[in-house]
Amino acid sequence: MAVDEILERSAPGPVGEAGRVSFQVEPGSYRHWRLTFDGPVATLAMDVDERGGLRDGYELKLNSYDLGVDIELYDAVQRLRFEHPEVRTVVLTSAKDKIFCAGANIRMLAASPHAWKVNFCKFTNETRNGIEDASASSGQTYLAALNGTASGGGYELALACEHIMLIDDRSSVVSLPELPLLGVLPGTGGLTRVTDKRLVRRDLADYFATRSEGVGGARATAWRLVDEAVPRPRWDQAVAERAAEFAARSTRSSRPEATGAGGAEGIALAPLAKRRDDDHIGYQYVTAALDRAAGTATITVAGPGQDPPHADAIAAAGVTFWPLAVTRELDDLILDLRTNEPELGTWVLKTSGDAGRVLAYDRLLLDNAGDWLVNEIVHYLKRTLKRLDVTSRSLIALIEPGSCFAGSLFELALAADRCYMLLGVFEDGDPEVGPATVTLDGMNLGPLPMGNGLTRLQTRFLGDDSALTAASEAAGRPLQADQAEELGLVTFAPDDIDWDDEVRIAVEERASFSPDALSGLEANYRFAGPETMETKIFGRLTAWQNWIFNRPNASGPDGALRRFGTGQRANFDRKRV
Amino acid sequence: MAVDEILERSAPGPVGEAGRVSFQVEPGSYRHWRLTFDGPVATLAMDVDERGGLRDGYELKLNSYDLGVDIELYDAVQRLRFEHPEVRTVVLTSAKDKIFCAGANIRMLAASPHAWKVNFCKFTNETRNGIEDASASSGQTYLAALNGTASGGGYELALACEHIMLIDDRSSVVSLPELPLLGVLPGTGGLTRVTDKRLVRRDLADYFATRSEGVGGARATAWRLVDEAVPRPRWDQAVAERAAEFAARSTRSSRPEATGAGGAEGIALAPLAKRRDDDHIGYQYVTAALDRAAGTATITVAGPGQDPPHADAIAAAGVTFWPLAVTRELDDLILDLRTNEPELGTWVLKTSGDAGRVLAYDRLLLDNAGDWLVNEIVHYLKRTLKRLDVTSRSLIALIEPGSCFAGSLFELALAADRCYMLLGVFEDGDPEVGPATVTLDGMNLGPLPMGNGLTRLQTRFLGDDSALTAASEAAGRPLQADQAEELGLVTFAPDDIDWDDEVRIAVEERASFSPDALSGLEANYRFAGPETMETKIFGRLTAWQNWIFNRPNASGPDGALRRFGTGQRANFDRKRV
Repeated sequence: MAVDEILERSAPGPVGEAGRVSFQVEPGSYRHWRLTFDGPVATLAMDVDERGGLRDGYELKLNSYDLGVDIELYDAVQRLRFEHPEVRTVVLTSAKDKIFCAGANIRMLAASPHAWKVNFCKFTNETRNGIEDASASSGQTYLAALNGTASGGGYELALACEHIMLIDDRSSVVSLPELPLLGVLPGTGGLTRVTDKRLVRRDLADYFATRSEGVGGARATAWRLVDEAVPRPRWDQAVAERAAEFAARSTRSSRPEATGAGGAEGIALAPLAKRRDDDHIGYQYVTAALDRAAGTATITVAGPGQDPPHADAIAAAGVTFWPLAVTRELDDLILDLRTNEPELGTWVLKTSGDAGRVLAYDRLLLDNAGDWLVNEIVHYLKRTLKRLDVTSRSLIALIEPGSCFAGSLFELALAADRCYMLLGVFEDGDPEVGPATVTLDGMNLGPLPMGNGLTRLQTRFLGDDSALTAASEAAGRPLQADQAEELGLVTFAPDDIDWDDEVRIAVEERASFSPDALSGLEANYRFAGPETMETKIFGRLTAWQNWIFNRPNASGPDGALRRFGTGQRANFDRKRV
Repeated sequence: MAVDEILERSAPGPVGEAGRVSFQVEPGSYRHWRLTFDGPVATLAMDVDERGGLRDGYELKLNSYDLGVDIELYDAVQRLRFEHPEVRTVVLTSAKDKIFCAGANIRMLAASPHAWKVNFCKFTNETRNGIEDASASSGQTYLAALNGTASGGGYELALACEHIMLIDDRSSVVSLPELPLLGVLPGTGGLTRVTDKRLVRRDLADYFATRSEGVGGARATAWRLVDEAVPRPRWDQAVAERAAEFAARSTRSSRPEATGAGGAEGIALAPLAKRRDDDHIGYQYVTAALDRAAGTATITVAGPGQDPPHADAIAAAGVTFWPLAVTRELDDLILDLRTNEPELGTWVLKTSGDAGRVLAYDRLLLDNAGDWLVNEIVHYLKRTLKRLDVTSRSLIALIEPGSCFAGSLFELALAADRCYMLLGVFEDGDPEVGPATVTLDGMNLGPLPMGNGLTRLQTRFLGDDSALTAASEAAGRPLQADQAEELGLVTFAPDDIDWDDEVRIAVEERASFSPDALSGLEANYRFAGPETMETKIFGRLTAWQNWIFNRPNASGPDGALRRFGTGQRANFDRKRV
């Protein structure tokens, strides 16, 4: 059954009445995870409700997951960073006996259309990168405590943790059975993390990924698939010890005022105020106008309404603090549009507001980078911009009078595939509003790297150091269109006479091209230069997985993915491609 | 093996009587290229015979190409390196007026099955990498002299050259029209080379790749799409000057005896002696037994039959010199099997002969690395092993008594996805032959890097410096199975009792898996660690292109590739994936 058909009659949960998936959940309503706290150690236990699938038609047995389970996981990972500055180790484990997690639900995958599978895997990969970002950037280290078998996506989830413990009970194993059982790849990071993170030798990795029964105990340790295999009698104590060790080494909340009794206070991620209908999505600062005929979403990000508060007042402002509010809204919007609006293939990016205030907020963030909350906000913005980078939609930035593409918001223009900036003003525009300007600041020069490890500015000027230097040295100066074009910061700078035609053609033309070819083009162009584990996951592993998902050998009526569990073997076209 | 084997003749064109494509051609029979010489400058002019397509059903108009055109190009590139040590600049141009090359023939692509398209693109990419290797490793610099429009694959061919000159006549342009016209990518290196080699800013690259009419003149130069745009009156002279400049800077044939009158003599790449039928492919040193029921090709590489000659005698030996002979045979075999035997999904790699002699030949090569011919042979072996790395077949190496997996031939085992080495001897084996050994030497430690820039040994032990050091320090020592396993040089070392079962299961199991998933698995596992332009082309760009090729939006009955030239617009599924 196609997922689209199930959509209309789905029960409460993350699928709303119009059949749209919502990414807004909260711990009180989790159906699949239990989050508990013990001082600096949090335990995030997977306890999937078999009947809690996002759609009808499959049961989430053996802690297998679907997008709904992943949405709760993402929410938990976010809350741990913002609401729990005291947490330094997160123990990821299972609340079920003998099974950690069986990976993505196969019946769900088999029944899902291609685009759904791909989008689901992308979100899953992003959450796993987010887990690694918590360990790397936030002193909140994830420890996988595999108290039972971790197979497929279950083991890939463990791979996102810094340390993997496996219970040594002669039956629990780690495995990547996707290839032998389903004819697809361990595609949510699995292959890449096994070789590039765990440094498993590739011939052993090959054997491992073709052995559906998995590997446990001493062999799993010797091959580096896990860090330690611990017998059951010592399990609880060993996990507690390891969690305490990681907590003791953490630098989280290390500023003086946070080390006192109680440490820093977390801030509550209150629900977003969001209006959503067929044509419009609105939050406080971010709005999107959806034009189905044109195939576009026009996204406008509003700058701050007031000057920034004093540094001491940031925590009190909490989710109302503009940088955090705007990031949360943008994050939710990206996920909403990606999941619910696959036919809106072009996103037009605009901003509106006072550029000076954006720069003032940036300065506040840069000046207080050592503050735990500021650190969290900047890394969250970094992750959200990365989400934009890997979004399979064409991004066109329009810079017009009244906009505020400055500092952190200029990253939106740098993330775009193309950027048009009006030279001068519109003849019929507001006479009070002068020509648009763009301004770089410190936020463009380091704190918001892309997945390839470079800033968007470095990626833009790859190999052209003099252009990079010239642009960097212009930081702090408002640049009009001709200057921005001269410095290579915008693609084209048409004047009022040409603007409408040029922009219209760019947007209309985009809608006329093959959506698949555009996804491929953008996935290649957006990441010039060096590659990292992250870009390899999104670029190489994902592309191969998408190809395999789309092949009859996996998804055809006789394919392995469709035939899994039917008792019938797959019938392969044996030609190698 | 006797020397009087019949040569498989392709008459006429590269498709032989059994419908197999042959990669053996020679300049005298080129239908599509003209190769002329003027001292240190060779001119390779594309002059495609419209009626010379490899298959019926399409005409190769406007210097468009198919696999047959590419096979001749590959042959020319190889001969330039071996037969023409005096050539220091190769001017790649067109013998036709106003058109350089229109890229891959669209009707051919539209009519080709998926596997054919993918294999064709792979070979095309390999030849382009070979062109870059000539510039980088051989002092033989390629200069693209675009005397007319270069579009699609035509421009991608130019991108493989070190310097691109475009005639500035108000009509000649460079373009990548694949996306707007065909709904596919510029997938033979195009996207990657534009951003990572030419360093074109990605927003300009985006505009360029969506503008089917292309970019010429000053704009093409300003955007770095070409290095210079030269008006027609100055064209011939400018090309000649530039060719002479590159030749003057070349280090080719720099050894003392080559700088005398006439310089070094080239060696003739005489036709390979090859026997080929449905079950067997045989050359002098390399044989392959094809088992269609099992889906395997068992490839055996024989070591040298005699001790190496003195260094002075290498050139006289020419194509009979063992390292060159074995490399040519292996290269042809890989291409034959890839193109003509897509259902043989597993290649079992064996060797036979005297390991000591292999090591002696390696020493000769290493000791004479400065000799132009030795340099060519080692780089050719490097390229051939890289071809193996990107081959979408499972590679299983079997190391048995009587084998000679030593030095350069041990690279075959390192290239394999898995390697089995017999511990001890076969109980019923030849009592004269002792247990197998493997030996590393200098050839494993540098001269034969993979596409990722690392040696196969470095890739194998990525991030494990102590294992790499231990293996490297064992160089020169023959290692028995237990030692090789201990050092991590082989995957498994079963004894006589387990050998048959373990090997049989490994091979049979491989044949039972999804061929697509295996291609994806191997493409990910084989390249751990850093990425280069080359691995990005084969890993990321190719994977996206394969996915796009396989999508209805390109190859379905209403897809852009199928509808091109019919006057009907493609009908796209607009959902973004």
